[in-house]
Amino acid sequence: MTSSLHTGSVLRRPFLDALLAALTQRLGTRVTTAQAVRDHHGRDESSYDPQAPDAVVFARSTEEVAFIAALCAQHGVPLIPYGSGSSLEGHLLAVHGGLCVDLSEMNQIVAIHPEDLTATVQAGVTRKALNEHLRDTGLFFPIDPGADASLGGMAATRASGTNAVRYGAMRENVLALTVVLADGRTIKTGTRARKSSAGYDLTRLFVGSEGTLGLITEVTVRLYPQPENLSVATCTFPTMTAAVQTVIETIQMGVPLSRIEFVDALAIRGLNAHAKLSMAEAPTLFFEFQGSPSAIEEQIAVVRELADGHGASGFEWANRPEDRNRLWAARHDALYALLQLRPGAKAITTDVCVPISQLAACVTETGADIAASGLMCPIVGHVGDGNFHVLMLIDPDSEEERERAEALNHRIVRRALAMDGTCTGEHGIGLHKMGFLIEEHGDAAIDVMRSIKHALDPGNLMNPGKIFSFTA
Amino acid sequence: MTSSLHTGSVLRRPFLDALLAALTQRLGTRVTTAQAVRDHHGRDESSYDPQAPDAVVFARSTEEVAFIAALCAQHGVPLIPYGSGSSLEGHLLAVHGGLCVDLSEMNQIVAIHPEDLTATVQAGVTRKALNEHLRDTGLFFPIDPGADASLGGMAATRASGTNAVRYGAMRENVLALTVVLADGRTIKTGTRARKSSAGYDLTRLFVGSEGTLGLITEVTVRLYPQPENLSVATCTFPTMTAAVQTVIETIQMGVPLSRIEFVDALAIRGLNAHAKLSMAEAPTLFFEFQGSPSAIEEQIAVVRELADGHGASGFEWANRPEDRNRLWAARHDALYALLQLRPGAKAITTDVCVPISQLAACVTETGADIAASGLMCPIVGHVGDGNFHVLMLIDPDSEEERERAEALNHRIVRRALAMDGTCTGEHGIGLHKMGFLIEEHGDAAIDVMRSIKHALDPGNLMNPGKIFSFTA
Repeated sequence: MTSSLHTGSVLRRPFLDALLAALTQRLGTRVTTAQAVRDHHGRDESSYDPQAPDAVVFARSTEEVAFIAALCAQHGVPLIPYGSGSSLEGHLLAVHGGLCVDLSEMNQIVAIHPEDLTATVQAGVTRKALNEHLRDTGLFFPIDPGADASLGGMAATRASGTNAVRYGAMRENVLALTVVLADGRTIKTGTRARKSSAGYDLTRLFVGSEGTLGLITEVTVRLYPQPENLSVATCTFPTMTAAVQTVIETIQMGVPLSRIEFVDALAIRGLNAHAKLSMAEAPTLFFEFQGSPSAIEEQIAVVRELADGHGASGFEWANRPEDRNRLWAARHDALYALLQLRPGAKAITTDVCVPISQLAACVTETGADIAASGLMCPIVGHVGDGNFHVLMLIDPDSEEERERAEALNHRIVRRALAMDGTCTGEHGIGLHKMGFLIEEHGDAAIDVMRSIKHALDPGNLMNPGKIFSFTA
Repeated sequence: MTSSLHTGSVLRRPFLDALLAALTQRLGTRVTTAQAVRDHHGRDESSYDPQAPDAVVFARSTEEVAFIAALCAQHGVPLIPYGSGSSLEGHLLAVHGGLCVDLSEMNQIVAIHPEDLTATVQAGVTRKALNEHLRDTGLFFPIDPGADASLGGMAATRASGTNAVRYGAMRENVLALTVVLADGRTIKTGTRARKSSAGYDLTRLFVGSEGTLGLITEVTVRLYPQPENLSVATCTFPTMTAAVQTVIETIQMGVPLSRIEFVDALAIRGLNAHAKLSMAEAPTLFFEFQGSPSAIEEQIAVVRELADGHGASGFEWANRPEDRNRLWAARHDALYALLQLRPGAKAITTDVCVPISQLAACVTETGADIAASGLMCPIVGHVGDGNFHVLMLIDPDSEEERERAEALNHRIVRRALAMDGTCTGEHGIGLHKMGFLIEEHGDAAIDVMRSIKHALDPGNLMNPGKIFSFTA
């Protein structure tokens, strides 16, 4: 797409060669310039054409990352951290060339403290691997973006998912990080205490910094007791507005749901095909209730009354674990399922989040906007947070469709900003939303971000070209 | 106390005079150098001797604060924000002289959005004023430090209180801030969306920055539905260890209490005297349960069983609102109540927070340490968070007692740090814990904080001398 983003490697070759020689001396074959490996690391789940780094290194410890960062600083070579490759906004593209630091081999569980409800893991551990490890402890880690993302990547993009309405996002659930700075020094940003007023909140500064301020190598997160009882329900509504209005009222009543997800009729068709389900193709809510059996009954009674008031029908219950899991797996695979609605298509995703009172208007106006656009765009959303995604399925070879989709995306984001919302609830800025970031925050706030970037990474070597333009 | 902190005003007089002339032209009598006003603004609730600013200005709007900051930048005069004067660690002392910006007249409720569960207020609005305003909406703002602090001050110190175990601290509950920067520009750090991945988390950078990066003028916070049913209980334990062990097990079981507070036997004596209560003088837990009647019954059953297992006795219930309020008022007034245990004394407070598994050891060892010290030191704690306070009641004229208390404080903090805890759970660093901040975070992390300070406040004019030493 837009070729101006693709500045290509600006490295002078001797610097890179010297760096690679020094890296290889310590890390051997874990440093590579093989084209296939570079190509694999120059892409993510966005619709951007890949842009490969000059080399890839597979790190296994914080010490190795510190060694790599110090060498990169010495040689003036950019670093791009890579977890599981599931970013959606172009975070991983090597727009200034440089070295991709693949952290997937940093997959060790460092410590589980079940009595404190905390886990410390290396950055490459994925959310599913952590939960697999926790299975017999009675605890779990709730943050669940669609992909099986790495915890380092989830921290770097301030990810969330379907459970955020109850448990919060990475912002609320990271207690501490180990971060390698641009000069190769390592810091710990916090302790395992549940709260602290000790100085600037470096943890939350690095959470959401998308690799531009430092490289996250370890993550300490909060864990929660696995709910003893869960009950999942779906129901359909005559209109998107009716479904979203039900969500708004449920949240305003303070019903402590663990999940409340919206899936539009088109997206249901995609999920049905992908997961061999047979849900009615209508605007649908997925609810998950938890608590004691009596508490769940009380919650269900409230939600049913609200839903009935908006013409809900076809309540279906999935109480057996295997049925619940099948439903949530379908929801988590939405990106892949919805891509199949138009074989060969690419998805441009957008990810706005608005105050809950604005959600019905925002979704309804967006639905009309999509219809007018003539594009195929399913909508799914973590609507309990006011967050929804539009997947714009475009022909990758049609510049006209891409332009139409980006124009639609502009209107969706501007609509959310006008409603005191944000241009991204959980995907991050990457390359795709740099312009919107300025619209959302204003020049002075962007200046503050830039001045922090300059203070921590004066050479502009940490994932350069992402979040905002910046010249060292 | 330590005279090195009291560097006095380092301002050159002509700069100050020019500033005051320019301020007075716009703000008239709201600019003052009257000694009584200066003295009042040079103190807080810490045990430090007051250190007055050179002048005080009462601001009424963000625009006025921006005007003041721009003038201070022009004249090189430090600014110290002042909310309600309830800081505990010396945050308000004018150690480098300068201008105190009193925000208490910025007491307007800017907007309540009941349907979104958000409130936007000027920085001088206190937590009680906000809740008074909200009373008929069915909503409330839960964060409750002991004092009736201003929301700007609570954001600046990353405050919490008794409700944090359920609702989180200011860190989790501030959605957005309006901040005047050192150069007089104004930024908004966020939107009213419940979550966002849009760029660096400036909101959480300013939350806890203690006025050293900018001056908070408006705060947008989350609100919650007032619980329909509340039940408060107290019970006593044979030992501190038994009480704290009960807390640990309650938290580990995931019981969704709204409050769980520890008060030691000495502190109970103080509360009894202050609030005309007649509680047994023994280690005591205060519990608050909320939810539906059946959910509360379930919670109570679990907690009673755990407490009984640790020898609890004397369960007393306060179900009438007036009885509940009397109990919580007593707990909130603890600082003032406990000062009366030793008439004429000053309190040096400490405020550590440790992972919950370490809490029993930390409190028990601290109890023995206090006994050995010969000082009168009641303990109270937000123990559901692993956070507890020791009030060291000292004769303000005895340097020996002060040294003994500070030595005790050092041991308490080092014990918490050794347990992977923090030197302050909710009071902040101010002047008192600058050394501990370095011990907790290490030199490299402090360098990161300093570089951010330098980036945002190169002239070191924003509450200089707090959190860490810094030279412009």
